[in-house]
Amino acid sequence: MTMHEVAARAGVSIKTVSNVVNGYQYIRPATKERVEAAIADLGYQVNISARNLRRGRTGLIGLAVPELSLPYFAELADSVIRAAEARGLTVLIEQTGSVRERELEVLSGQRRHLTDGLIFSPLALGPQDAAALHVDFPMVLLGERIFGGPADHVTMNNVEAARAATQHLLDLGRRRIAVVGAHEGETVGSAALRVQGYRQALEEAGLSVDPALVGEAGLWHRATGADTMERLLESGVEIDAVFGLNDALALGALHVLHARRIDVPGQIAVIGFDDIEETAYSSPTLTTVAPGREQIATTAVDLLLARIQEVEPDKPFVQVVTDFEIVVRESTVGEQAS
Amino acid sequence: MTMHEVAARAGVSIKTVSNVVNGYQYIRPATKERVEAAIADLGYQVNISARNLRRGRTGLIGLAVPELSLPYFAELADSVIRAAEARGLTVLIEQTGSVRERELEVLSGQRRHLTDGLIFSPLALGPQDAAALHVDFPMVLLGERIFGGPADHVTMNNVEAARAATQHLLDLGRRRIAVVGAHEGETVGSAALRVQGYRQALEEAGLSVDPALVGEAGLWHRATGADTMERLLESGVEIDAVFGLNDALALGALHVLHARRIDVPGQIAVIGFDDIEETAYSSPTLTTVAPGREQIATTAVDLLLARIQEVEPDKPFVQVVTDFEIVVRESTVGEQAS
Repeated sequence: MTMHEVAARAGVSIKTVSNVVNGYQYIRPATKERVEAAIADLGYQVNISARNLRRGRTGLIGLAVPELSLPYFAELADSVIRAAEARGLTVLIEQTGSVRERELEVLSGQRRHLTDGLIFSPLALGPQDAAALHVDFPMVLLGERIFGGPADHVTMNNVEAARAATQHLLDLGRRRIAVVGAHEGETVGSAALRVQGYRQALEEAGLSVDPALVGEAGLWHRATGADTMERLLESGVEIDAVFGLNDALALGALHVLHARRIDVPGQIAVIGFDDIEETAYSSPTLTTVAPGREQIATTAVDLLLARIQEVEPDKPFVQVVTDFEIVVRESTVGEQAS
Repeated sequence: MTMHEVAARAGVSIKTVSNVVNGYQYIRPATKERVEAAIADLGYQVNISARNLRRGRTGLIGLAVPELSLPYFAELADSVIRAAEARGLTVLIEQTGSVRERELEVLSGQRRHLTDGLIFSPLALGPQDAAALHVDFPMVLLGERIFGGPADHVTMNNVEAARAATQHLLDLGRRRIAVVGAHEGETVGSAALRVQGYRQALEEAGLSVDPALVGEAGLWHRATGADTMERLLESGVEIDAVFGLNDALALGALHVLHARRIDVPGQIAVIGFDDIEETAYSSPTLTTVAPGREQIATTAVDLLLARIQEVEPDKPFVQVVTDFEIVVRESTVGEQAS
């Protein structure tokens, strides 16, 4: 199997196949799709180890994420691995545990000789760490804790997506929408941005934000979602909907509502954020925001590969904001959705 | 912070602290616990990089697992990372996708210069690959697809645990117990061993195994669990309980039973296997087998560290079988459990 055969099947030049395989950025999407389809159809395998040896590369890229026990990051890792594999790269994953020191260690490049580049999703770095983001190896950043860091950057559209999630609840006639997972006093990061989207939607609907409805939860786990839901219910505040700032929080909230025999969505509608696989199987199934996980993974790998291969060394760093969509399931509209 | 202070606080010698920190095997559990508590209390950090440099080591260990999008493996990875971290090691994770070629590549040692040793959970290797398990680097194997491989080995007690799971259903008066996730014709691996435990329990109860109750599912995902449950229900066979051979399968089955408004556990009781976090939050919560995940992780890291440090180079390879327990939740005994 050779690159010639791929080129013939895709009806393009060998140079174009080479550009696609090497992650070159400026290829028309239709052309790229045709080449990728031909590669898939023919089962063509890039002889990556020979190529890497020639170029002094390892064929490995690093992926540093906060916590694999959070399904979002486990599923993101899976998507990155698949995207990398399609480009002949192997991924080594490191878990930082959302510990600032560990995140700084990742940036210090102690392990840079192991891999050709890094995809990094920081969660604990603060504005004071911005200087550490200046690294001398290829890196793509994911998420919000970037602080103008000098690197290519892929992020979700947190504000708009959270606004759309809240709007979905408003469209269903809900007016007392609680938030589960806010981080008081935080101005950067996913929590702050998603709460901002929630506020925007309420304000556009002419509603004011009731602070009693904004539930804090430091970690975004099922257990903390359950605790926050308990506290909100105990407070006696009127609630007709819940926006879990991620799916784990929303699933924890669902668990508490079920235990208290509160009908979902009859009494309280619930929406999450992330579209982890579990949301399609919970009872009721969970309406959520699909934040473009596959797009995040493929974009990050393509950007990193272009930097590794120095396709355009002087290209300014780019920020890519992924598309999102609301996935409507039973927890907001009842069994009609199933 | 020095090792002296840890020794003083734990009331042991510095040599003992050193042994614990270096993962030496023959320390009394109570002593080990005291030292670990002192380390945790004092926030003592092993100066691992200096130590490794001195010894020509990287301070990194590899963990190769089939799929991080399966919560069991994501949570196992998390446990291994935490156990390794407590011993001053960083874990690099690789996903094999249950592809035999990828698993063989892991064994080929192409990346052995990156790490000091490997914890490897194969899923696709067959008996014909036994020779490949002879490697020249420190390795600990997890799971069942070992084929007498020459390495330290940590495994669950699959047969006994599955027998206990089935016995739990029998004790509740269930007699028509379906299996979700069998692999027809397979004689090695988790599926075969767990079905064997199921058979043993039924036979001990004087019941025969009804082949119509044994549902196949190649992959052990939520989606395949749902499909298999659908097929079993469509077949019209009488069912009063379901044993999902892992939690993902059981959660897929629960989803189908919920959609069909079949009461769990009233009409059909459901038990899973793995005790992933999600099982404590599903509706109903899922009774399952906790297979000793933390024990698997800490044992594997300790065994690997002892091999890396050549504590006892000639020590014969050991097999450790972990303890299990049945975690009883709503899906078998109803809401009394919550």
